[in-house]
Amino acid sequence: MVDDGMVAAVEAGGGRVVDAGEAEGIVWTNPRDPQGLKDTLEESPATWVQLPFAGIESFVAAGVIDPRLTWTCAKGAYGRACAEQALALMFAGARRLAHHARATTWREPGFGSPERQLDGSTVLIFGAGGIGQALIEMLEPYEVSILAVNRSGRDVPGAERTVAMDGARDLLGDADHVVIAAALTDETRAWFDGDAFARMRSDAVLINVARGGIVDTDALVDALKGGEIGGAGLDVTDPEPLPDGHPLWDLDNVMITPHIANTWDMALPALRALVERNVANFAAGRPLEGPVDPALGY
Amino acid sequence: MVDDGMVAAVEAGGGRVVDAGEAEGIVWTNPRDPQGLKDTLEESPATWVQLPFAGIESFVAAGVIDPRLTWTCAKGAYGRACAEQALALMFAGARRLAHHARATTWREPGFGSPERQLDGSTVLIFGAGGIGQALIEMLEPYEVSILAVNRSGRDVPGAERTVAMDGARDLLGDADHVVIAAALTDETRAWFDGDAFARMRSDAVLINVARGGIVDTDALVDALKGGEIGGAGLDVTDPEPLPDGHPLWDLDNVMITPHIANTWDMALPALRALVERNVANFAAGRPLEGPVDPALGY
Repeated sequence: MVDDGMVAAVEAGGGRVVDAGEAEGIVWTNPRDPQGLKDTLEESPATWVQLPFAGIESFVAAGVIDPRLTWTCAKGAYGRACAEQALALMFAGARRLAHHARATTWREPGFGSPERQLDGSTVLIFGAGGIGQALIEMLEPYEVSILAVNRSGRDVPGAERTVAMDGARDLLGDADHVVIAAALTDETRAWFDGDAFARMRSDAVLINVARGGIVDTDALVDALKGGEIGGAGLDVTDPEPLPDGHPLWDLDNVMITPHIANTWDMALPALRALVERNVANFAAGRPLEGPVDPALGY
Repeated sequence: MVDDGMVAAVEAGGGRVVDAGEAEGIVWTNPRDPQGLKDTLEESPATWVQLPFAGIESFVAAGVIDPRLTWTCAKGAYGRACAEQALALMFAGARRLAHHARATTWREPGFGSPERQLDGSTVLIFGAGGIGQALIEMLEPYEVSILAVNRSGRDVPGAERTVAMDGARDLLGDADHVVIAAALTDETRAWFDGDAFARMRSDAVLINVARGGIVDTDALVDALKGGEIGGAGLDVTDPEPLPDGHPLWDLDNVMITPHIANTWDMALPALRALVERNVANFAAGRPLEGPVDPALGY
């Protein structure tokens, strides 16, 4: 994929676009072709590779992430787009938009209706990186309590309380909204299982704008059908694409969006800006933005 | 309707709950019974009436609003709940939640998908009272331009530009989101007509969290079907309830919520707090919150 804007970004960063055989760095923009990158690297002396998205597990799985090279990804660059989607799905849960969108008749008259405000609620953010921090900024105007979970347990600015992963289960019961914004790693894979859902409130909503594999989908379906949790808003699923006929499609309290938190149109301007900065950083020998730790896989 | 919490609010404000025949003020909590209030007033020496909601047109229509009395309503008290709903519907439009909620299959693969971010967009707020001001606060974290329309044209804090009603049509073409948050009056009734929709962008979304009658519904259906505007998010409709089989139910780019911006559960704590303050204000001879101008009807 040759993108004129990306060529311009490389040049604006002080670089020059050359063949792989003489490249010092590679800007790889196609997230769906790890094998193509592997082939390219074999014929290139490049020591730095810029990957296009925040999640790099397809490259990890394909064995492309050679730890002798320097790797950067776009983590953080799309935080605001994904945080907007998280908030959209939080509102969808609180205001029952999946239910209302499918209705073809007005509600019964009367005062009682179970929609809720964000004001007064507690939001747990599981994985407080770029998305989580952007979400915390967007929640600033509301009267909400924010609980954060990250790998280190180091305080996240704006969160009332931050815990490390091993303390996270004890907080699940405090949240009205549980927002997954973590990387998919061995540690987070299927972290949201039957035990996690049993700990959540029966009216709590699970939001996932990160990776489907962080959730045990069968356990989620059981929890939704059994009323153990109140609903879900999913921009990502496991498997993904979600197959036709999957039970998640039919649940009145589930809003599924087909991985559109950060569309290509939203991403491209941010990716170009990141490439420009990282080309300049690379040329000057400065630290690069979005470094990947090959050992951690993100 | 006797509500213990409301009795407590009256008492907390320094008042006492008595029969209508000896009341100095009346707190009327049922928005659906203007005739009941009319009957009550005939046997009461009360000089002040507190109405329960922000919109009072049912009381105006029933001829209850005697201009010799002092009237207050709950305008402003529910601004945050309604502003949250406006934002929920803006996200629904930008993220195509009505479309996604009804889908039973994943989208076609590929990068192109037309969802949009709020960041970078322009929001026009038609009627910048309590709801509009709360919405402006909630939009603070986003990179959005805010245009405001109010009766006076006096600058609304946080808006890039404010115009009076007669200048509003010229601004319609600048907005990605047009949010109706005005009172229903002779001036605003059916203000959003074919001409207004023709001036809006073909990808703009109309949001209405105020009163259905501000929009000419037939013209809206035509504009949505004809692609003159991009979509709509409606918490209120005209007629309301929206009848079964109405064409708005079937449009892929319309999210309808059945007047749940401010549910009774959300409203009650705010109304009680307002009643407490206004009972205290009334007893002390201070100005009351939420005064109604009988001549303007809001």
